[in-house]
Amino acid sequence: MRVGALKLKLQLVCGDAFAMGPGKADLLAAIARAGSISAAARALGMSYRRAWLLVDEMNRCFRERLVAAHPGGGRERGAQLTDNGRAVLAAYRALEERSTVITESDAYRALTGMVRETPLAATAEIDPKR
Amino acid sequence: MRVGALKLKLQLVCGDAFAMGPGKADLLAAIARAGSISAAARALGMSYRRAWLLVDEMNRCFRERLVAAHPGGGRERGAQLTDNGRAVLAAYRALEERSTVITESDAYRALTGMVRETPLAATAEIDPKR
Repeated sequence: MRVGALKLKLQLVCGDAFAMGPGKADLLAAIARAGSISAAARALGMSYRRAWLLVDEMNRCFRERLVAAHPGGGRERGAQLTDNGRAVLAAYRALEERSTVITESDAYRALTGMVRETPLAATAEIDPKR
Repeated sequence: MRVGALKLKLQLVCGDAFAMGPGKADLLAAIARAGSISAAARALGMSYRRAWLLVDEMNRCFRERLVAAHPGGGRERGAQLTDNGRAVLAAYRALEERSTVITESDAYRALTGMVRETPLAATAEIDPKR
C-alpha cells in the first residue's frame, strides 16, 4: 500500500508460509464480491490455479478456514468468506490503516525532506570499478 | 524486516523509482564498511553492475548524493558515504524502528490470535472449480 511517500508491504508470517498479505487480502475481497474463487481470479486477472493455491495457503495458516466452498454438484456453486475470513480481512485492513502512524515521525520527515520529487535522469554509463 | 509475526517492507518512493529500501540500506551499510562499491557488492553476493545501478538510483533520487567515489587513478580508490548518505541511512533505520509500533494494536493482536504457528500440510489436489 502507498502511505505518503512510502510503499509499504505487510505480510503475516506462518512458519515458512505467508498467512496474509496485500495480494491475499485483495483476493479475499474479490471472493466476497464475486461469490466464487474462479470469478474472483478472473476479476483480478489471475489464473484459477494461482487463486486456489493462495486460498489453500490461507486456509492452512489460520486456525479456522477463511474461505468455504459450497458443496459441489448442486445449484449453489461457488465459495464465500467464512465469519473468520471476514474477521481476518477486517483485521488486516485495520493493520494497514494503523501503519500510517509511521509517517508521523521525525525519521519520515527527515527522509522526505532529503528526497527529490522525481529522480534525475539515469547516468549513461557505469563507472569503472571503485 | 521482521517485526513480531510480520514481515515488513518499507520503500521510499521517488517518482517511478525507489529512493531507499531494505536492499539499498544494506548496500549503503556495506559500502561504509568495505570502502568501495565493488567490495560491498562482493560482501553482499551482488554483481558490481547491480550495486552500481542501485547507488546511481539512490544518488539520482536524493537532493545530495549518498555515495561519493574517490577520484580515480590515484592511490586512494574506492567509495564512501557522504554526510548525507549517513543521514539517510540513519533516518531509514529509525523509520524501520518506528514501524514496530504497528504491533501495538488491536488489529495485530487479533491477527496473531487467529493464525497458526505453522501451516497445516499442503492439500494434495486442486478442487474442481468453485
